[in-house]
Amino acid sequence: MKIAVLGTGMVGKAIAGRLHELGHTVVIGTRDPAATLARTEPDGMGNPPFSAWRAAHESVAVATLADAAASAELVVNASSGAVSLDLLGLAGADNLAGKVLVDIANPLDFSHGFPPTLFVKDTDSLGEQIQRAFPETKVVKTLNTLNASLMVDPKSLGESSSIFVSGNDSQAKATVVSLLQSFGHDDVIDLGPLETARGTEMLLPIWLRLMGTLGTGTFNFKIVR
Amino acid sequence: MKIAVLGTGMVGKAIAGRLHELGHTVVIGTRDPAATLARTEPDGMGNPPFSAWRAAHESVAVATLADAAASAELVVNASSGAVSLDLLGLAGADNLAGKVLVDIANPLDFSHGFPPTLFVKDTDSLGEQIQRAFPETKVVKTLNTLNASLMVDPKSLGESSSIFVSGNDSQAKATVVSLLQSFGHDDVIDLGPLETARGTEMLLPIWLRLMGTLGTGTFNFKIVR
Repeated sequence: MKIAVLGTGMVGKAIAGRLHELGHTVVIGTRDPAATLARTEPDGMGNPPFSAWRAAHESVAVATLADAAASAELVVNASSGAVSLDLLGLAGADNLAGKVLVDIANPLDFSHGFPPTLFVKDTDSLGEQIQRAFPETKVVKTLNTLNASLMVDPKSLGESSSIFVSGNDSQAKATVVSLLQSFGHDDVIDLGPLETARGTEMLLPIWLRLMGTLGTGTFNFKIVR
Repeated sequence: MKIAVLGTGMVGKAIAGRLHELGHTVVIGTRDPAATLARTEPDGMGNPPFSAWRAAHESVAVATLADAAASAELVVNASSGAVSLDLLGLAGADNLAGKVLVDIANPLDFSHGFPPTLFVKDTDSLGEQIQRAFPETKVVKTLNTLNASLMVDPKSLGESSSIFVSGNDSQAKATVVSLLQSFGHDDVIDLGPLETARGTEMLLPIWLRLMGTLGTGTFNFKIVR
């Protein structure tokens, strides 16, 4: 499948790399491709620069947000939640219309320190905000409840764990579930309509505190039943 | 241990019954003991009346909130979150002073329909509100992330799952962890100070949606790591 991944951070790189490995045609979308490719310094978190990742993934194209979205059959929102609506606006409603949008972003607000709070919760969700802003796009919320490496390789935990999907379009969810299964997710729980993304986005407060307690982000929720 | 359980609903009955079975001296605290014992009709959820439960648990005492709290070494808040502060006020700050208070309540607001929203979240929690209202009491938040029958018998799931504790007093948490282990909890995760109750209380939105999707409340979170 032709897939555009919007975002060049840990999540974007992990998803793009895995999709390419699985045989998809992948393009990463970014505001300014030349600037992104020119980065040679580690990012604010100490992660290697995009250019280092790209050198190991030369078959992954890099394009503007609009060109990436226009060329793709399916689009992944791997941006920070605080800028997701802006970035998707730059990608363009026309370029996103009729397509499945996999929304991984979380509505984290770091303006009051760590742990961040959520800038939308309980009576709305970022997934629903995106759906309202792009009504012709089929938004499916998933993968926002675990770290980037486990998103694309959950079996590395050595034990089955759960992943959630929320969305209003059954066919779009079926497409996304297939992708998740190709990543190794063997317990995909369809929570129902996109409204249920309120539940998965509100997992972040405990996720962040568990990361602190366990001293690692390498863990995942399993729904034992 | 002498334990008071405040609340006569599903949670109160499950906790009181299990503690009694484990050899503790248990008293259930309620606003009006005579009225509680006189109930012969099923509750609003179709559960058997308190009198039916009491007939099978005659060794569990029933007393006013204040008398129950006064007689106990450890107190369990098994009331609805919306009335917890009122009920604990009736139990009396003096009767709660210096004691461990196990807070199981969730800040659910049903005034906007189902699923309920949370009346406090993200920047505060019900556990912290109770701690501020009763500063001489050692509040430990736990057991608010699974249904009543699994609270007291997690092994009935047939597979290990996780339970969380949050609190500011290490000794109080150690007491509560021992009680949890006596119930069968074999993966107790100490999240740290009571502030982390924000994380566990914010699990309710996905818990409620999972109950809808799975068609049962008989499930629990396991942190796979």
